[in-house]
Amino acid sequence: MFGPAEEDYRVSAPDRVAQPADSPAPPVRYEVGGSGVAVITLNRPERMNGWGGGLASGFFRCMDDAEADPDVRAIVVTGSGRAFCAGADMGDLSTISAATVDAAADTDVGKLVGERHPHFVMTMRKPVIAAINGACAGMGLTLALSCDVRFAAAGAKFTTSFARRGLIAEYGISWMLPRVVGVGVASDLLLSGRVFLAEEAAELGVVNKVLAPDQLLPHALGYADDIAANCAPSSLAVIKQQVYEDTMLSVFEASNRAEKLMHESMTRPDFIEGITSFFEKRPPNFPPLEKEDAS
Amino acid sequence: MFGPAEEDYRVSAPDRVAQPADSPAPPVRYEVGGSGVAVITLNRPERMNGWGGGLASGFFRCMDDAEADPDVRAIVVTGSGRAFCAGADMGDLSTISAATVDAAADTDVGKLVGERHPHFVMTMRKPVIAAINGACAGMGLTLALSCDVRFAAAGAKFTTSFARRGLIAEYGISWMLPRVVGVGVASDLLLSGRVFLAEEAAELGVVNKVLAPDQLLPHALGYADDIAANCAPSSLAVIKQQVYEDTMLSVFEASNRAEKLMHESMTRPDFIEGITSFFEKRPPNFPPLEKEDAS
Amino acid sequence: MFGPAEEDYRVSAPDRVAQPADSPAPPVRYEVGGSGVAVITLNRPERMNGWGGGLASGFFRCMDDAEADPDVRAIVVTGSGRAFCAGADMGDLSTISAATVDAAADTDVGKLVGERHPHFVMTMRKPVIAAINGACAGMGLTLALSCDVRFAAAGAKFTTSFARRGLIAEYGISWMLPRVVGVGVASDLLLSGRVFLAEEAAELGVVNKVLAPDQLLPHALGYADDIAANCAPSSLAVIKQQVYEDTMLSVFEASNRAEKLMHESMTRPDFIEGITSFFEKRPPNFPPLEKEDAS
Repeated sequence: MFGPAEEDYRVSAPDRVAQPADSPAPPVRYEVGGSGVAVITLNRPERMNGWGGGLASGFFRCMDDAEADPDVRAIVVTGSGRAFCAGADMGDLSTISAATVDAAADTDVGKLVGERHPHFVMTMRKPVIAAINGACAGMGLTLALSCDVRFAAAGAKFTTSFARRGLIAEYGISWMLPRVVGVGVASDLLLSGRVFLAEEAAELGVVNKVLAPDQLLPHALGYADDIAANCAPSSLAVIKQQVYEDTMLSVFEASNRAEKLMHESMTRPDFIEGITSFFEKRPPNFPPLEKEDAS
Repeated sequence: MFGPAEEDYRVSAPDRVAQPADSPAPPVRYEVGGSGVAVITLNRPERMNGWGGGLASGFFRCMDDAEADPDVRAIVVTGSGRAFCAGADMGDLSTISAATVDAAADTDVGKLVGERHPHFVMTMRKPVIAAINGACAGMGLTLALSCDVRFAAAGAKFTTSFARRGLIAEYGISWMLPRVVGVGVASDLLLSGRVFLAEEAAELGVVNKVLAPDQLLPHALGYADDIAANCAPSSLAVIKQQVYEDTMLSVFEASNRAEKLMHESMTRPDFIEGITSFFEKRPPNFPPLEKEDAS
Repeated sequence: MFGPAEEDYRVSAPDRVAQPADSPAPPVRYEVGGSGVAVITLNRPERMNGWGGGLASGFFRCMDDAEADPDVRAIVVTGSGRAFCAGADMGDLSTISAATVDAAADTDVGKLVGERHPHFVMTMRKPVIAAINGACAGMGLTLALSCDVRFAAAGAKFTTSFARRGLIAEYGISWMLPRVVGVGVASDLLLSGRVFLAEEAAELGVVNKVLAPDQLLPHALGYADDIAANCAPSSLAVIKQQVYEDTMLSVFEASNRAEKLMHESMTRPDFIEGITSFFEKRPPNFPPLEKEDAS
């Protein structure tokens, strides 16, 4: 929960976002472009987009909006300022002591980190792409790993950090990380809590690709635009579900289920459009995701 | 099921195989060399070795023959022409419409893609090596992933393609791919349906190695020859079963089972020959796989 | 069980350790440094640290000592001489025949390879780092894979070897290897039994990093020292358990369990120290692991 605070990642003067006093910036920004891609930006740069309180609930609300909006076909999550999400917002805990720790243990953790576990992102029907613009630590890394695909800016700092704070592998990161990079790399990163850079993160498979900082968001948006334009929403919903749920099935169960799902897919308009557009050598024009698809 | 058709992969004039009118080429070629390696070649180059109908049933028959033949110790699967297998043979579906889609949904899919799921390859007792000579898409990629080891020719094009046709992750590819490359890479490839080349496939771990096109088959055959000459058939049968079945066991169950299997292996002639040949510093002369081994 | 013997790996004259006749070297050396790192050295260099008999029981005893000693916070396992562990000690089996094989099948395997399965290393509460100084084969590779993190000396030779001796994937290696490197690489290494070098082992993910031979132990010790100095013993115990046990859970189960474990961690002194040292910008001073932690 408690990731490294700002000073772990300070590489230059903080680029605090200037806000007019009469219009406080929302802790999470939400924009939907014409291409069908929602961009959700963690927006407390002065706190390294630390997780918790208003930022967490704002994130959940934006994700719910994106999931419900038929015009949204893919979601990009990024951060403003120098961090993606540097861990839990340690706010008041900076004066922690034995007494406050006792209190912390009694705390409704939901207040601190939000009422949902990060794996809710995996249960969404739309693909979620993390554009990791900077520090990605603790809870922030757990969040990034709950996204489907990860791109990172060169030089971004990563760390699991938990073991260095007397904490444990939080909220499913010990489930996700071994399934993304294997048990050996996961053990290295979780046991040592060491800092590693985006370049190594790409080599290890923690992120799918590393990009020059000014190319990160354009690349993530281009990738999401391509999915929004060319992939059937119903296919995305089903495939995403298959990838995560098949982790717990045998190949026989998974294959039988896939056969049933294939038959279902052949009754959907997306299938007609997928095949006819292909033979007509034109871009597909898939209908929006219906409420009942992949329910 | 419906992978990309020929035009996705056309990089030069099609190299259609000239066939004398009175001797149609079989859709799948089967050859067993003196070294104990069977080579099974998907052989409808004019249709990019599209999966379905005669090609699928021919493939099953050849695999059954190889599995049953005591002289066969390893199997190489490859394609003739420019493709390994570019997906399902879309044949009559090129004139698809709403009406035909309704019909398709009622279709006995077995007629289209064959009566077995690709994971039957994993249940065979002999190692299967894919030599991916060219386009490997949709059902073709699922097939390649059901093989144990994959080599690919430089420049060969890969894609899952399903999401772009309104389909789903077919026949267990959503089980296999995450177990081969991890959940993050699998999500990228399955959700985007993007094309990637053999070189990237090797970097991502989708294939074990990439080779110059003219070195692909020699390398795959050399690899298979080495297994056929030096590895005990009974060991291969048991180890292959362990690799796939242990995916569903705990380490305790897997380890206990391995102890039992080890004791069984020590009662087989292969064990005597494995140890004596080793100490005598000569190549082993393992007996063929017995019917009851690893049953 | 029976890995390659010395000649497979002989690259130069054997560097047998000279031992004064009146003080036989122990088969396993055990040293605890002031930094809280135990170094356990397989020490039968004249037998390539072949597994079995006294070496196995010595290893178990040293591991038990390290686990029980509150001053030990991380464990490094390495080998003396040219091998890490070249497989089972084939000792008397060098004159194997049909008769002795019958006997072998009746053997109490425990006598040969020790009374425990290698996965007991995964159940320990302290991180175990393998410093693979040389040949790592058969049972030796299984042992290395049961450690949490692996570093290897450039040029060290690796092989699973089982298939080439008429044996099977022993003691859980068919469970571990696919979870470390994926099913495709694991199939390659287990079915072919081919030799691969440390450099390829790092590329494939079998080891976390390859180092110049004279940098191997310093690197492993530096890595372990960092963990011992900066990571909370209770965190390490819980996280290690999470990594292995979560392989069998759903993400929902794993995440719920993590939430419970997080609350527990917040009641421990390690948490107070982790947070206060962080805010005070000083190294943490974590208490030793308590007996009841992570039990």
